[in-house]
Amino acid sequence: MSDADFRPEARAPRGFSDKRAGDLRVERRILDAVSKVYERWGFEALDTGAFEYADALGKFLPDSDRPNEGVFALQDDDEQWMALRYDLTAPLARFAAENWETLPKPFRRYAFGPVWRNEKPGPGRYRQFIQCDADTVGSARPEADAELIAMGAEGFEAAGLRRGDYLFKVNSRKLLNGLLAAAGVESQGQKLGVLRAVDKLDRLGMDGVRLLLGEGRKDESGAFTKGAGLNGKAVEAVLAFVQIGAGRGDTLSRLSDVVGGSAEGAEGLEELGRIETALAGLGVGADRAVFDPSIVRGLEYYTGAVFEADLLLETTDEKGNAVRFGSVASGGRYDDLVARFTGQPIPATGISFGVSRLAAALRAAGHNPVETARGPVVVIAFDQDQMTAYFAAAAELRAAGIPAEVYLGSSGMRPQMKYADRRMAPAAVIMGGDEIAAGTVTIKDLDLGRALSSQVADNEAWRAERPGQMTVPRDQMVAAIAQIIEAASREPKP
Amino acid sequence: MSDADFRPEARAPRGFSDKRAGDLRVERRILDAVSKVYERWGFEALDTGAFEYADALGKFLPDSDRPNEGVFALQDDDEQWMALRYDLTAPLARFAAENWETLPKPFRRYAFGPVWRNEKPGPGRYRQFIQCDADTVGSARPEADAELIAMGAEGFEAAGLRRGDYLFKVNSRKLLNGLLAAAGVESQGQKLGVLRAVDKLDRLGMDGVRLLLGEGRKDESGAFTKGAGLNGKAVEAVLAFVQIGAGRGDTLSRLSDVVGGSAEGAEGLEELGRIETALAGLGVGADRAVFDPSIVRGLEYYTGAVFEADLLLETTDEKGNAVRFGSVASGGRYDDLVARFTGQPIPATGISFGVSRLAAALRAAGHNPVETARGPVVVIAFDQDQMTAYFAAAAELRAAGIPAEVYLGSSGMRPQMKYADRRMAPAAVIMGGDEIAAGTVTIKDLDLGRALSSQVADNEAWRAERPGQMTVPRDQMVAAIAQIIEAASREPKP
Repeated sequence: MSDADFRPEARAPRGFSDKRAGDLRVERRILDAVSKVYERWGFEALDTGAFEYADALGKFLPDSDRPNEGVFALQDDDEQWMALRYDLTAPLARFAAENWETLPKPFRRYAFGPVWRNEKPGPGRYRQFIQCDADTVGSARPEADAELIAMGAEGFEAAGLRRGDYLFKVNSRKLLNGLLAAAGVESQGQKLGVLRAVDKLDRLGMDGVRLLLGEGRKDESGAFTKGAGLNGKAVEAVLAFVQIGAGRGDTLSRLSDVVGGSAEGAEGLEELGRIETALAGLGVGADRAVFDPSIVRGLEYYTGAVFEADLLLETTDEKGNAVRFGSVASGGRYDDLVARFTGQPIPATGISFGVSRLAAALRAAGHNPVETARGPVVVIAFDQDQMTAYFAAAAELRAAGIPAEVYLGSSGMRPQMKYADRRMAPAAVIMGGDEIAAGTVTIKDLDLGRALSSQVADNEAWRAERPGQMTVPRDQMVAAIAQIIEAASREPKP
Repeated sequence: MSDADFRPEARAPRGFSDKRAGDLRVERRILDAVSKVYERWGFEALDTGAFEYADALGKFLPDSDRPNEGVFALQDDDEQWMALRYDLTAPLARFAAENWETLPKPFRRYAFGPVWRNEKPGPGRYRQFIQCDADTVGSARPEADAELIAMGAEGFEAAGLRRGDYLFKVNSRKLLNGLLAAAGVESQGQKLGVLRAVDKLDRLGMDGVRLLLGEGRKDESGAFTKGAGLNGKAVEAVLAFVQIGAGRGDTLSRLSDVVGGSAEGAEGLEELGRIETALAGLGVGADRAVFDPSIVRGLEYYTGAVFEADLLLETTDEKGNAVRFGSVASGGRYDDLVARFTGQPIPATGISFGVSRLAAALRAAGHNPVETARGPVVVIAFDQDQMTAYFAAAAELRAAGIPAEVYLGSSGMRPQMKYADRRMAPAAVIMGGDEIAAGTVTIKDLDLGRALSSQVADNEAWRAERPGQMTVPRDQMVAAIAQIIEAASREPKP
């Protein structure tokens, strides 16, 4: 087979998806609404490139079993390893370290864009997705954490979630660290094991976590996961801690009984107290944010406050089964990430959400039903010698703000009408020789056609005012089509 | 040195840049304006992933001296080679081939997003940039080409260029092919050599192109570029063709004398004639689009009409030297790109522009001066015990649509004022214990401060109405700040 005869298969790479107009419209509306909120809170936009040097990215992904530790990496022609960013935090840390001298401090930035993870692809598991982050670099104040939570809540509501749909759960790594220190656990490996174990509470329940805090756990398949190796007393202390229960001032009081004894625990508690005061000042009540010691977040780099926003709605999958939606945003304080570069400690805190996940949450909440993708008016190419008249009609509609196009394929009338219907055109415009001679146009109401094939058309009154097809003077074309579009907006929903 | 002591250098990879808020604002405004135009013309949004399989991308980049033929490629863990897209056309061809059966035909889509080229990085030469494309797949009609030109022009104007700033230059590959066929040149390699030679007309002039059409050319450095190897008569025929001159009907008449003799030339000429008619019908006159046989475009995959939009403005660089801006958009017909996958011929045509380049064109045109990046109002953290009052003030401003933040660093008054100034805050809000007790706030007009340090402040009348600092009742804070912002919008420009 010669090279010219080679035919590649047309397929997207595994784990990468194509997004069509409907999904993109929802995504862009979310990003636009959230960006406006972030800018109103004084955060400025930043966009870094897709690549970072591999050493700058660091190795912070929990999934380290994959090639290149879960990232897409390649070697540049100067032999340096570069990798596609796996989140927006690592590039921010690099940017902040690189430009620290000249930035206004604290540096408040937001960013959105694709991130890439070299995970095992599977159904619904994508290797590229859009994240949207806001971070404050250079402020050690707990108020900076509180602000991200309040702003995140405002962002959710701007995007379409309602109060009561979501709840922020806040904790501090310092509490657990303090508790472990008091129990004599100092090894970094053990501490990380405790975090990983507690992070699985949702999935494994208290008994599963107890095993993972101790010697280890064998799952249904018989595979054994080594535990953090705590002694029995420490295990029970951790379990008592995570079960303290969610709340505001009440939770902080109960926490002080458990972790007040260590210096780091006391520090974490004091910080949560200041977050509580700031949240109250920002008008964020217990219906939007609570403290919950069971939240630890999996990422290793968090050093203080951690938080996530959970969707409270009961959601169901396509088969009607109840589905735990889980978190729609998360974040926390990472005081050491910029110092990796500079050696100089620079406190930082951030919040992040996945845009597709928030779109799915909005869908699940039912407040933001997928809009019918409204297509353009299609001017039928009826007579090849009249293309100029068709272009003029389409231009006139566009000038009136109505999306419109001339059919540019090579098919006859019937496929053209089918095309217009598939594009979800509100109307088709037909101008044959007779119409042009008489100075008229024929307009076909395609919304009506679609409605007739659904149940809606039982509404007689609505049907009576929509004739389906009409011939109007050419100079009334725009008005007639505007009326069809307006009528469609009043259409009774099925 | 232990791993924990390792400090990576904070730097973006070579050829990748960080974009700050000012540039992003311009880019987003362009994409938003152009997207609205494209949707009004009936084009639907599509977003494909960053990666394609390398065989799907093909090898169409002119720069084949680089590793992986100018793309960033890596091998997936199933051994398949993937590469980051180098344009938005190749992914569209793959998507169209993959989904052809279920797409409305013709398929009209627009897309924007980053593309990556593994070029030699250098000052101002980036390896990632944003493209914005619109394509019609499944229409062989020359009207589809004309429409992209008319829509591109409307997009430019929506983005901020004015009529007269730009000019589309249109040609057809078929003319040159016909002319070469008539001269007995049939080899693909020679034809490609002719395209590459003519494409350098701007840079090398007629004499340089003459050498490249013939045996070859030695440049100033002594390096020799092999020519297309045409005989003398064919060389002169090509040169006569490219010098026919730009215009509309007049150019087409002159072209018919030169290329009418071959079947492919006649076909190209007939297609340009239909483009001429359609452009006229779409109201695009010779002030916005002309035919120009010297335009060939470097990309190998074009099969028919090709076009580019040139910036007509005299532009100057920072040193005041005149600069040829060159093309701000380009495109053409690529009838074989989808057939690479399917074997089935599917005609297609597209237009593409680089967003940074259009932003630079707008800057050069001077119609879209870089906006002053207006920052948030900064509420000074004067008294640590009053943070709640500060958060409430910021929230009140935001609720009124005024971006605002509380200073969250740890510095004193003077650095806080400096921070507010660097953020380009219109005002700073100061609430000390006295003010809070008296129910007032002190507002510092930072715009005035900045104006005083420029020449503008000579305007006495304007200065008189701006007191610089004022103390107002707390419940008049929002109104007072709104007034400062409004006054700034009337500020005489330096």
